[in-house]
Amino acid sequence: MNKVAEWSRHYRSRANQALDQRLPAADLHPGDLHQAMRYAVLGGGKRIRPVLVYSAGAAVGAMLEALDGPACAVEFIHAYSLIHDDLPAMDNDELRHGRPTCHRAFGEALAILAGDALQALAFQVLSQDPAMISDSVIRMRMLGLLAQAAGSRGLVGGQAIDLAAVGRDDLTLAELENMHIHKTGALIRASVLLGAFSRPEVESTVLERLDRYAKCIGLAFQIRDDILDVVGDTATLGKTQGADRALNKPTYPALLGLDGAREHARALHQEALASLGPLGSEADPLRWLATYIVERVY
Amino acid sequence: MNKVAEWSRHYRSRANQALDQRLPAADLHPGDLHQAMRYAVLGGGKRIRPVLVYSAGAAVGAMLEALDGPACAVEFIHAYSLIHDDLPAMDNDELRHGRPTCHRAFGEALAILAGDALQALAFQVLSQDPAMISDSVIRMRMLGLLAQAAGSRGLVGGQAIDLAAVGRDDLTLAELENMHIHKTGALIRASVLLGAFSRPEVESTVLERLDRYAKCIGLAFQIRDDILDVVGDTATLGKTQGADRALNKPTYPALLGLDGAREHARALHQEALASLGPLGSEADPLRWLATYIVERVY
Repeated sequence: MNKVAEWSRHYRSRANQALDQRLPAADLHPGDLHQAMRYAVLGGGKRIRPVLVYSAGAAVGAMLEALDGPACAVEFIHAYSLIHDDLPAMDNDELRHGRPTCHRAFGEALAILAGDALQALAFQVLSQDPAMISDSVIRMRMLGLLAQAAGSRGLVGGQAIDLAAVGRDDLTLAELENMHIHKTGALIRASVLLGAFSRPEVESTVLERLDRYAKCIGLAFQIRDDILDVVGDTATLGKTQGADRALNKPTYPALLGLDGAREHARALHQEALASLGPLGSEADPLRWLATYIVERVY
Repeated sequence: MNKVAEWSRHYRSRANQALDQRLPAADLHPGDLHQAMRYAVLGGGKRIRPVLVYSAGAAVGAMLEALDGPACAVEFIHAYSLIHDDLPAMDNDELRHGRPTCHRAFGEALAILAGDALQALAFQVLSQDPAMISDSVIRMRMLGLLAQAAGSRGLVGGQAIDLAAVGRDDLTLAELENMHIHKTGALIRASVLLGAFSRPEVESTVLERLDRYAKCIGLAFQIRDDILDVVGDTATLGKTQGADRALNKPTYPALLGLDGAREHARALHQEALASLGPLGSEADPLRWLATYIVERVY
């Protein structure tokens, strides 16, 4: 196995273990709520955001233990947003990670609550995890960063822009990018920055490089998602192929054509690598991730 | 006007102003989301939780400016929980503060998102508000406290217990109390403690007194709510009278009878006042609040 696959496997499995440990036990009262939370988080997923936390942390020399909390926090936010996004009032999806969506398995009411509780858990972990960086001033900044990324000017704002865009076939590329900068970009950026903040006294020029990297791969990630909605198949994706088109959602392939979308993703990939510039081999996991993001098949 | 009414008016109007300032502007992109958030928060409400923050802060001598952030944070959590609680998949309520519920006014999808964004905003305010207590270690504790109170072992857990209890006519008093300790008690307790933490070096014995006070009024508040669902009228309540009975929800009057429920609330009121014990006139707003909570008509 090559080194790249080894890293990613290692980080992914570390993330899965950390998530499992930080989720309330399935038999803890109220059990049905905790089971729904565990189902939604542990049921699958690529763990791209936690892997980004670990990789960005590794790039600046952060302790691995200090990264578990932030890795879980971003994944809890991601998982809650998927639960709510899949609800009948939103995308009305039946399949997620190849299994029934949370509301299909637990009912709508409990799914809404499981999402709500996962968001609270993200902030609880970030404020209470004992292995995280001990500097409280930095941790406050991390909490503010995650709250902003998750809120109405970040992820949730992106969902609202997405809602308003359904059925609009006159969306410009700038409007589409604006939507994705909020919807997926904000949390991906937060993942990279939370990883970087986990090392005390990280240089501001390095933070700027990582921030630029994060912005590029955030958009590239979404373009690849849109492409996969066209060329992927439901079994590999673990979610319904063609769902975006069926909802008449604006996508990169619809605006740029398949080749144009691929070219756009490639350009962002190059820019992401260039942003890392002089960083040494400690940034290789980030380089590998950028490549994975534009080449992945699910 | 007596002093008590003056306090409460002052704190309420201060809370309304602080909330208005911390909510995103209605014309800020995405506008429909921000309008839904403002509608849900500014449309009305007794502001009991912010008034508790100010009153507990006053009892320990905290600066008024330091209390605005925590006051808004608890109210944002409360407002988001009402939005989600009113959804068709939950209580399916049409009326809140005498106006259409958020999903009735903005649609279900946007209401879900407005609730999600308000939760994030609560944590953002608590981590970034510049006038709050500057000690980062204490602020981290405050953030952890609010996250726990809002999560699966607090408010959201209480909602899940409530869901599971609908239609069960064999609920014991202990089970009913357990539900309310989570559903309303946790956030009321957090309100009191966040106010108290806003003064540096508050004595631990005082914290314990305030904590006991908070637990008593949290339960008393819920008992009064249950009583009002029986004896109140829709116009005064601003929400549908008899909604709990219609949903066949377990209530204190159903378990103890109306008189028994009133007696239980009176006993908790006495215990709350006793908990404040030796605290001087600086704790009078808390004393007044305890009385208001068991006597209020809406």
